[in-house]
Amino acid sequence: MAEKIKTRAEDYSQWYLDIIKHANLADNSDVRGCMVIKPHGYAIWEKMQRGLDRLFKDTGHVNAYFPLFIPKRFLEKEAEHVEGFAKECAIVTHHRLIPKPGGKGLMPDPKAELSDDEQLVIRPTSETIIWNTYKNWIQSYRDLPLLINQWCNVVRWEMRTRLFLRTAEFLWQEGHTAHATQKEAEEEAHRMLEVYRTFAEDWMAMPVLTGPKSDGQKFPGAIYTLCIEAMMQDHRALQAGTSHFLGQNFAKAFDVKFQSAEGKLEYAWATSWGVSTRLVGGLIMTHSDDQGLVLPPRLAPIHVAIVPIFKKPEEKVAVLKAANELAAGIRAIPLGDWLNYDPIVVKVDDREQYQPGYKFNEWELRGVPVRVELGPKDIEKNACVLARRDVPGKEGKEMGVPLAGAPTRIIEILKSMQTSLFEKAKKMRDAYSYEVNRWDEFKQKIEEPGGFLWAHWDGTRATEDRIAAETKATIRCIPFNRPQEKGKCILTGEPSEGRVVFAKAY
Amino acid sequence: MAEKIKTRAEDYSQWYLDIIKHANLADNSDVRGCMVIKPHGYAIWEKMQRGLDRLFKDTGHVNAYFPLFIPKRFLEKEAEHVEGFAKECAIVTHHRLIPKPGGKGLMPDPKAELSDDEQLVIRPTSETIIWNTYKNWIQSYRDLPLLINQWCNVVRWEMRTRLFLRTAEFLWQEGHTAHATQKEAEEEAHRMLEVYRTFAEDWMAMPVLTGPKSDGQKFPGAIYTLCIEAMMQDHRALQAGTSHFLGQNFAKAFDVKFQSAEGKLEYAWATSWGVSTRLVGGLIMTHSDDQGLVLPPRLAPIHVAIVPIFKKPEEKVAVLKAANELAAGIRAIPLGDWLNYDPIVVKVDDREQYQPGYKFNEWELRGVPVRVELGPKDIEKNACVLARRDVPGKEGKEMGVPLAGAPTRIIEILKSMQTSLFEKAKKMRDAYSYEVNRWDEFKQKIEEPGGFLWAHWDGTRATEDRIAAETKATIRCIPFNRPQEKGKCILTGEPSEGRVVFAKAY
Repeated sequence: MAEKIKTRAEDYSQWYLDIIKHANLADNSDVRGCMVIKPHGYAIWEKMQRGLDRLFKDTGHVNAYFPLFIPKRFLEKEAEHVEGFAKECAIVTHHRLIPKPGGKGLMPDPKAELSDDEQLVIRPTSETIIWNTYKNWIQSYRDLPLLINQWCNVVRWEMRTRLFLRTAEFLWQEGHTAHATQKEAEEEAHRMLEVYRTFAEDWMAMPVLTGPKSDGQKFPGAIYTLCIEAMMQDHRALQAGTSHFLGQNFAKAFDVKFQSAEGKLEYAWATSWGVSTRLVGGLIMTHSDDQGLVLPPRLAPIHVAIVPIFKKPEEKVAVLKAANELAAGIRAIPLGDWLNYDPIVVKVDDREQYQPGYKFNEWELRGVPVRVELGPKDIEKNACVLARRDVPGKEGKEMGVPLAGAPTRIIEILKSMQTSLFEKAKKMRDAYSYEVNRWDEFKQKIEEPGGFLWAHWDGTRATEDRIAAETKATIRCIPFNRPQEKGKCILTGEPSEGRVVFAKAY
Repeated sequence: MAEKIKTRAEDYSQWYLDIIKHANLADNSDVRGCMVIKPHGYAIWEKMQRGLDRLFKDTGHVNAYFPLFIPKRFLEKEAEHVEGFAKECAIVTHHRLIPKPGGKGLMPDPKAELSDDEQLVIRPTSETIIWNTYKNWIQSYRDLPLLINQWCNVVRWEMRTRLFLRTAEFLWQEGHTAHATQKEAEEEAHRMLEVYRTFAEDWMAMPVLTGPKSDGQKFPGAIYTLCIEAMMQDHRALQAGTSHFLGQNFAKAFDVKFQSAEGKLEYAWATSWGVSTRLVGGLIMTHSDDQGLVLPPRLAPIHVAIVPIFKKPEEKVAVLKAANELAAGIRAIPLGDWLNYDPIVVKVDDREQYQPGYKFNEWELRGVPVRVELGPKDIEKNACVLARRDVPGKEGKEMGVPLAGAPTRIIEILKSMQTSLFEKAKKMRDAYSYEVNRWDEFKQKIEEPGGFLWAHWDGTRATEDRIAAETKATIRCIPFNRPQEKGKCILTGEPSEGRVVFAKAY
């Protein structure tokens, strides 16, 4: 590609947008805040969906579908919830367009205006409509647990948007479960966080912290929110997934009671949990480099690009034959579980209007994990050249790989790349994670170079808010694995039960 | 299940709703016209999606995602299109809720009202937003063809709804392709109709007529619409899928021009095509019987239910062991392509709170293709009993099937059931398809017993409208395979080029 992308050092934000543009992942649309997910970007999301969906089903969940519309009166029922979402929701008030009196253009038909009671909100999240439905599905403890997930679109009227990371409409999954006991519901919330951690680390090769949010950062309507939190290459945090223990809040709001094994009427216990197309943004920011997109092989829509090199017609015949045989050889290796039983996708790039150098760049830009170069001289030696996307330049190239062994070698590279992308990202995160003990040091570090600041906090909302106001850093996570260590709050000097992780976040 | 479903003879409409209710497929929601798709119903839709998606990808299509919202001004651009959809669309006019002045409840914030130019419609179909996007993607003939599909929800504000068949919100896929020539676009429209026919007949086991719609029935904005049309068990027609040749209508409305190989600026040619969750309704109405749901095995979420029968504890151990071994034996048979590389799903129904008879009924109601009965006496003989869902009573049972051969036999039954469901549906359709040559006969037959009336028609919209007004029958399809036969219009006696198919439709 002749098109240049900005380097991370030059302009990190622009680098991110350039990758999305030149790797053909998404576009801004002409609809305020909404994006168009282009085929290559959507293919990554489809891979993510397949991976997550299997993890959900393996833990006993089933999919269902609930309405896009939420009656306004449902939103009103849970006080914290409405407080959290009313400010940014799209409201449907009419159900017909008619020509304007002048004749030019259309207008909502005043005769088709919804009454106050009928007005609808586009779901920003579906707790309310789902718990209104669960009321009809849950009568007895025998109906529990209810372990349901839905894949859908939601709308939150965001003013400042950024492709994938924050858009007014986004795609996500939202799990909504109902349980007979508090213990079961809390176990479920933790189980699903662990599913998210597994997906983030084993599929996305993106290391994450896990733990609860502080009260200031929890989901509106939750008792507590657990999260997975990742670090991007500019050392900012990305909240990548959340799992909420909702207590009996929604059961009470929608009067969902069941008869327990002991014959008592009790409110059901709830969880909800979700991840979204934001993960695609996280994937880009975790692995990509100044040459373009880098994808972990388990989520790559195309795994191998074979670029045949030839000038003369007789070369072309021989080279294409070898390329197609090699492709067939790679496709014949089943990767089972590791690829969700999907086939390995191999492209033989036989386009004649482009030169090999152009093709190399293009596959690099698009994040294909392994590139194979195959020319007449290679064929003479029954060999080929392999280039792995995560190691730039000559170091990432293997010359003279025998064709017979190439499929096996390519699989080895894919598997090793999956691991080393994770290791590399983890090394980066660890390099920018510090214990910080003095307020001046905190203020300086959070500015430059940024990262995860492990600091003591007195546990109050007031302190959290003051720190955010002064530094833009928020508490990202109270890590499960934090050391047992009492101390003094970085800001107030009040007693602290342990360190929490502060960072600037997307 | 103690719950009774109405028979088809008693009340066909209620039978359909009873099946949906008792097989746990869907529920009406508290949102006007919108349904909740329950896990068992959604699992069928997921199977359909997998099947269709592969057929789309095998014909070179990729998935993408476009915004839920369509600016009102986009809808205005194609005259026929707006005429078709303006009357039934949901309009977003505000983006924030605030507490009502009194304090109780919420209202749209007047300060967050969208201006006339900003008002948004929830997509009823996405031609306009997609062609507005294609404008940026198509510059040269090298950018063509563009073969894109999207899976999403759409909203059409229907006043009279029926679960799956007609709902205000529904799930569907919509393909939108752009081509350099009229010929290529028309070939695409026909290719996708053939994909739909393949899916309907080979996966859903639902025979369909294929051919164009009359002008009166075409898609608003299309040059012509091709359709697949099925017959339900009450002899009504169901439009199951449509594929539209859109000519240059949307390219002109959104100014999508490209430079041809000859260097000329030309408008792109378009198709669009879609099927929806309506197919689930068609599936139910095609195969189900008075005992409940019947599913073609290729789309069944659960293929085999094994019901272990035991009284004493030592029986239980032996029977469950045999049941689990049998299940493992069935799961080990790969069905590849035939099941989209999905595994065969086998349930061992070891619930202790229900009697075997209850379980038999429940699996029957839920449409599981093969039921296995396995008790102590069977085990003594190393055998089991197989019951196939599509043949009721004793005729559908095979006694004393050796356990060792049972997995293979079950696969044979699944495959044979797939075929015989299609044959049975086709026989029914053929039995209620008639050539009709007199108007009084037409009027009588369309009332009772209904069906597909192959009749001559003079080709005018006026006649089509008069026939519809008098009999409620519409032209469903001008079948590709109709015999070459000139004749006289059934109503007007004017010359006709061939028979068309009339029916009452859902």
